[in-house]
Amino acid sequence: MSTISKVSIIAGGAGFIGVNLAKKLVSLGHVVVIGDNLSLGSKKNVEQWVSPNFDDFLETDVSSFDGAASLFEFCLKRHGRIDEVWHLAANSDIPAGVDDPSVDLKDTFMTTFWLLEACRKFGVRKFNFASSSAVYGDWSGIQLSETLGPLKPISNYGAMKLASEAQICAAGEAFLDSANIFRFPNVVGIPGTHGVILDFKNKLKATKDVLNVLGDGSQKKSYLHVSELVSAMIYVSGRVTDTKSAMIINVGCDDDGILVSDIATIVRDIVSPQATIVYGDGTRGWLGDVPKFSYDISRLKALGWLPKYTSREAVVKAAKELCLDTFEM
Amino acid sequence: MSTISKVSIIAGGAGFIGVNLAKKLVSLGHVVVIGDNLSLGSKKNVEQWVSPNFDDFLETDVSSFDGAASLFEFCLKRHGRIDEVWHLAANSDIPAGVDDPSVDLKDTFMTTFWLLEACRKFGVRKFNFASSSAVYGDWSGIQLSETLGPLKPISNYGAMKLASEAQICAAGEAFLDSANIFRFPNVVGIPGTHGVILDFKNKLKATKDVLNVLGDGSQKKSYLHVSELVSAMIYVSGRVTDTKSAMIINVGCDDDGILVSDIATIVRDIVSPQATIVYGDGTRGWLGDVPKFSYDISRLKALGWLPKYTSREAVVKAAKELCLDTFEM
Repeated sequence: MSTISKVSIIAGGAGFIGVNLAKKLVSLGHVVVIGDNLSLGSKKNVEQWVSPNFDDFLETDVSSFDGAASLFEFCLKRHGRIDEVWHLAANSDIPAGVDDPSVDLKDTFMTTFWLLEACRKFGVRKFNFASSSAVYGDWSGIQLSETLGPLKPISNYGAMKLASEAQICAAGEAFLDSANIFRFPNVVGIPGTHGVILDFKNKLKATKDVLNVLGDGSQKKSYLHVSELVSAMIYVSGRVTDTKSAMIINVGCDDDGILVSDIATIVRDIVSPQATIVYGDGTRGWLGDVPKFSYDISRLKALGWLPKYTSREAVVKAAKELCLDTFEM
Repeated sequence: MSTISKVSIIAGGAGFIGVNLAKKLVSLGHVVVIGDNLSLGSKKNVEQWVSPNFDDFLETDVSSFDGAASLFEFCLKRHGRIDEVWHLAANSDIPAGVDDPSVDLKDTFMTTFWLLEACRKFGVRKFNFASSSAVYGDWSGIQLSETLGPLKPISNYGAMKLASEAQICAAGEAFLDSANIFRFPNVVGIPGTHGVILDFKNKLKATKDVLNVLGDGSQKKSYLHVSELVSAMIYVSGRVTDTKSAMIINVGCDDDGILVSDIATIVRDIVSPQATIVYGDGTRGWLGDVPKFSYDISRLKALGWLPKYTSREAVVKAAKELCLDTFEM
């Protein structure tokens, strides 16, 4: 436990990862100010996870300069300074962005653009960003390392995450002292709002005897538990860096993932053990889905952070958290 | 010379590269429709370069959907179809985007975003894009290959070119049949509107006896003549591809470049042979400038296209074109 008090803004801080990050930063002695447009996050999340009477919260949409600036002004009024911004605001529902690219444009990229402009105008020099493995596109199972190129994202979501990275790098050159770009893998845990575990849970709640799986179940992906993600980000962000240049870093676990068919079995066994699992065709669940990937986290390990769980352990932990009756959406 | 008639839209077609491309496509039998907001391009350019009575021209700003759609509708009304889009609209003045990122956002990225949306709505399946070596950022002289990563652009210009690439790749997955992303090097020739050759020419017109050079002259970059750039793009775009995935390809010459000090000498010798050249400090001419790079064009060569000129030959040719009295801005 540190006693230093840093003032941290979390944009998108009422969402799944946001509240986990906020909770952890508060436990480390940070003052945390949360902004969220409550389209995917909720005030209830914040109160349940961070603190019952949490009032360093502003409902604002940071996809405009005014929306971003109002969050900075709110923070300055209450605490007199801003030491860093964590940017977790995004459209996290990839399929939703397939039909209408303007969803990811606004919620994923313009939020980045205007938060950076607010940093410049308000003199904030430290920026942490939730990027995604979706920036890589489909490498057909090749282990994803930060040094791969060229990047050809296959979803609008991945495209706008890569666009955000690019703008952050330029800002790093122009005025930021520190910029950390975390490429997230699939993240599981509570209070998650979507993803394969919840899909399976909801299907099994609807039809108890059968679980229909999109695709043939052979997709293999690595999963990280949200507690580990937050731990890794805070670890990396807390390091003293000797370069102005943005740090781009994969965050993930240290294995080649878990099969969708195994996830289906894990969730089925918890929610409805008697159900039969029925698979579909093809290796992709939806347009923009990547059949398989494993993650190279050697850069993260070289910095000294090591994951505790395997993908399977993360999924089992999250499935229990998400599927027990005590957790309701 | 082909006799097939393709209907090609060129967005940003009244600019330096646009008119050279238009001229070449017309000579190959294409019907060319040009849209331009005339902020950097000019109608005079089009008339002088493409045809004196060229009337397939619409003044429009394609950084909005309506602006892009009006260009598509104009083309459909006149020619009944659109076979391909060449997207060359951009803020090509890198320093101008340093102080205000919204310049590159609007002129370089939003043009891409809304042209792609127009392609989707109007059923156009072929997209060619003018990207830039600026997407690479500063690799301190390492030869730039398409496989390098991670990309950390150091200018807003480079950031918005990379953002555009990302969105094009996602569109390639969603609905395009063919997408070619050309990463331009420094391009020289007429009717160029900015760049090192013109800077030196203009300085020498102002003070005939001295040429003050920004930086110490040790920057080394490769240059391609615009005639070669256009030739390479048309060559690559004309190939039948067997993949829906976007093609990202460096276009450049096959050497490690020419020193700024050599360019200064070439221009001085043409414009004002008696002038003394005086160098400044540092290896960067301006924020966002990259001290040196050389270009790996093995991918382009593997496709069968080979450059004719060295960087030096391209600069000498362009310097003569730009500095002779017959060419006036």
